[in-house]
Amino acid sequence: MNEFADAARDGLSPEALEKVLREVGVSRYHNRHPLHHKMTAGSLSKAQLQAWALNRYCYQSVIPRKDAMIIARAEDPAFRAEWRKRVEDHDGTDGWNGGIARWLKLATGLGLDADLVKSQKSALPATRFAVGAYLSFCTDRTLLEAVASSLTELFSPVIIGERVPAMLAKYDYVTEDILEYFRPRPAQASRDSDFALAYVLAKSDTPEKQQAVIDALVFKCDVLWAMLDALEQAYGDHGHVPPGAFDPKRPQ
Amino acid sequence: MNEFADAARDGLSPEALEKVLREVGVSRYHNRHPLHHKMTAGSLSKAQLQAWALNRYCYQSVIPRKDAMIIARAEDPAFRAEWRKRVEDHDGTDGWNGGIARWLKLATGLGLDADLVKSQKSALPATRFAVGAYLSFCTDRTLLEAVASSLTELFSPVIIGERVPAMLAKYDYVTEDILEYFRPRPAQASRDSDFALAYVLAKSDTPEKQQAVIDALVFKCDVLWAMLDALEQAYGDHGHVPPGAFDPKRPQ
Repeated sequence: MNEFADAARDGLSPEALEKVLREVGVSRYHNRHPLHHKMTAGSLSKAQLQAWALNRYCYQSVIPRKDAMIIARAEDPAFRAEWRKRVEDHDGTDGWNGGIARWLKLATGLGLDADLVKSQKSALPATRFAVGAYLSFCTDRTLLEAVASSLTELFSPVIIGERVPAMLAKYDYVTEDILEYFRPRPAQASRDSDFALAYVLAKSDTPEKQQAVIDALVFKCDVLWAMLDALEQAYGDHGHVPPGAFDPKRPQ
Repeated sequence: MNEFADAARDGLSPEALEKVLREVGVSRYHNRHPLHHKMTAGSLSKAQLQAWALNRYCYQSVIPRKDAMIIARAEDPAFRAEWRKRVEDHDGTDGWNGGIARWLKLATGLGLDADLVKSQKSALPATRFAVGAYLSFCTDRTLLEAVASSLTELFSPVIIGERVPAMLAKYDYVTEDILEYFRPRPAQASRDSDFALAYVLAKSDTPEKQQAVIDALVFKCDVLWAMLDALEQAYGDHGHVPPGAFDPKRPQ
């Protein structure tokens, strides 16, 4: 049951819409997933952390593409200029000195081969399908829904605040240096989600649009949740690795 | 590691290409998945069978759409006429007397509400992402790759031959009547896969195309495998249901 399926039925004030969007985060964001709890409790193996970093790379690498898709669909130059900061954050000035490169550093810092990670060939098919669904969503849905799907960034400073100190404290091979990806993210995410939230609240001027933006955020939470589900299914204590995917027990 | 990643490097005869495609089935088709083994061993609960039927409905309902996409992309009227049989098989003459309707009968025969199943809203996000990836594949890739992705039907008579007798024998509430979906499928699948295989072997006249059709079949096996993985993660003995999805323990 999707408890948000009719949330905007009677129309919502901007304040009430923001409240619903934040409630989506409270109940659906992936900091509620058991795998996140295991990660912050220090109970994941190095191989499980490797699998997480390797798969999440697929997500990181599609972020600037989905953001470019949003820019491509926006008619307002000021909107485009603002949104472009996101692409710059992840691609950097030469493609390899931004967020994607820092995620790669995290993956290699955990002992993975850079080419293996960059090829994405050992990622779980389920990861690719979820990430592909996200890119398709930002391509096929309205611009408003695409913008709303980015609003998980409202909640990312919280999960980063849980994840980084716990990883440093609980895993002796995790250093501040390899977690550099996360350092600028809370400030970037706050800047980006402030802009996206103001846009969504201003443009959602019918109950239908309000419901669409709520559904878009639920969808995006589903994407992130499905990525952790796939990791648990493949690499959890009762997991089995699907054919062809990264297998810590076999040479890559 | 994908053991088929370089299979066509040196070019293959049609016979050798067919051999590789059949090997993909042997190592990657979802009759190798633990959930299939549990199903045929009779060790799934009714709720687990319900979850399987409910989620698989999403796949069934997209089949005629992906086939229509293939028809839409084909320039040869004879090819289109042949491929149209697939759409007819699933949609029937009025949309609700073909394969989709028979799958719905299976789901309701297991005790599910028809509207719940048809709405697809309680399906796992991971199921939707996998099915969406299949439709996107048939939309975005070459016609040859789209056709090749259908070749899992080469293997479906085998899995149906394993599944149907086992389900009738092991689950006292499963009857021949509710398994009617499967009755015409082996003959249809053989007819369809004969045609698709001949097409693929005839058109794959370079090593690049041969590799592309092998990769397409691996991709399709990944889709089917990921669907069973998602079920096991959500409804298996150590599973947890993601937010909003069908939960046998809660009223729908």
